[in-house]
Amino acid sequence: MGLAAWDGLANEGPESWSPFDVVGHLIHAEEADWIPRAKIIVEYGEERAFEPFDRFAMFEKSRGQSLGDLLDRFEWLRGESLKDLEGMNLRPEMLGQRGMHPDLGVVTLGHLLSTWVVHDLGHIGQVVRVIAKHYDEAVGPWQAYLPILSR
Amino acid sequence: MGLAAWDGLANEGPESWSPFDVVGHLIHAEEADWIPRAKIIVEYGEERAFEPFDRFAMFEKSRGQSLGDLLDRFEWLRGESLKDLEGMNLRPEMLGQRGMHPDLGVVTLGHLLSTWVVHDLGHIGQVVRVIAKHYDEAVGPWQAYLPILSR
Repeated sequence: MGLAAWDGLANEGPESWSPFDVVGHLIHAEEADWIPRAKIIVEYGEERAFEPFDRFAMFEKSRGQSLGDLLDRFEWLRGESLKDLEGMNLRPEMLGQRGMHPDLGVVTLGHLLSTWVVHDLGHIGQVVRVIAKHYDEAVGPWQAYLPILSR
Repeated sequence: MGLAAWDGLANEGPESWSPFDVVGHLIHAEEADWIPRAKIIVEYGEERAFEPFDRFAMFEKSRGQSLGDLLDRFEWLRGESLKDLEGMNLRPEMLGQRGMHPDLGVVTLGHLLSTWVVHDLGHIGQVVRVIAKHYDEAVGPWQAYLPILSR
């Protein structure tokens, strides 16, 4: 099954996301969430609340692209984010610096950076579930041994 | 956090597996499950039941190794498995060939190959959950937005 075949892969039902949707969402988060928010914390602290993050922006932004396009774009953006992060020269004592989330209230730089990690792990988990469910019937009697199919 | 730091990463509670355990289990499956069973189906069909697979073999086999050792070994074994698979010259009509699972009864070669995929996706999902839960408290108020932490 080539990469192109995953473009239209079914999601987990209404209001859930396909791998294509997820990668678009990760792209938008690189552009609008993690590093931009980290910079707001370092520069403005609690004085300036983050811009609200649009969890659905990718439905418009990804239109007309292939999953391969999105993966390439994500790979490039992640590289840029890591360079930006390194360039911020964060020291451990800065992880307690406080920022203002528009809904959650006070958060710290450490919370934000940990959330970046957990957020992306969560979406990896989501993508593997969606792909696994594509084989729901193909596994035959082994279905009973594969808890990912009922998660 | 370097790779070595994950060696002893907590699992998800009693009788659950750490990433170290999971990679050891994937190694044992490459050695004793997927390709060996595919060959039994092609050569013997239902006449010869598979050897039961030991889901806990890695607790002994992985002893004394690092996570890095295990990942290197898995990478090499997976490459060998894919070469073996290619060498079997399977054609689509062979996917219906039947074999005998010691507990599940009759299965097909297609079921087995699909299960290989879903099994490994399931364990990727497990590893990302375990790593994510390591940051359970570190994410602060974002915990509420991260469903992987309560899966």
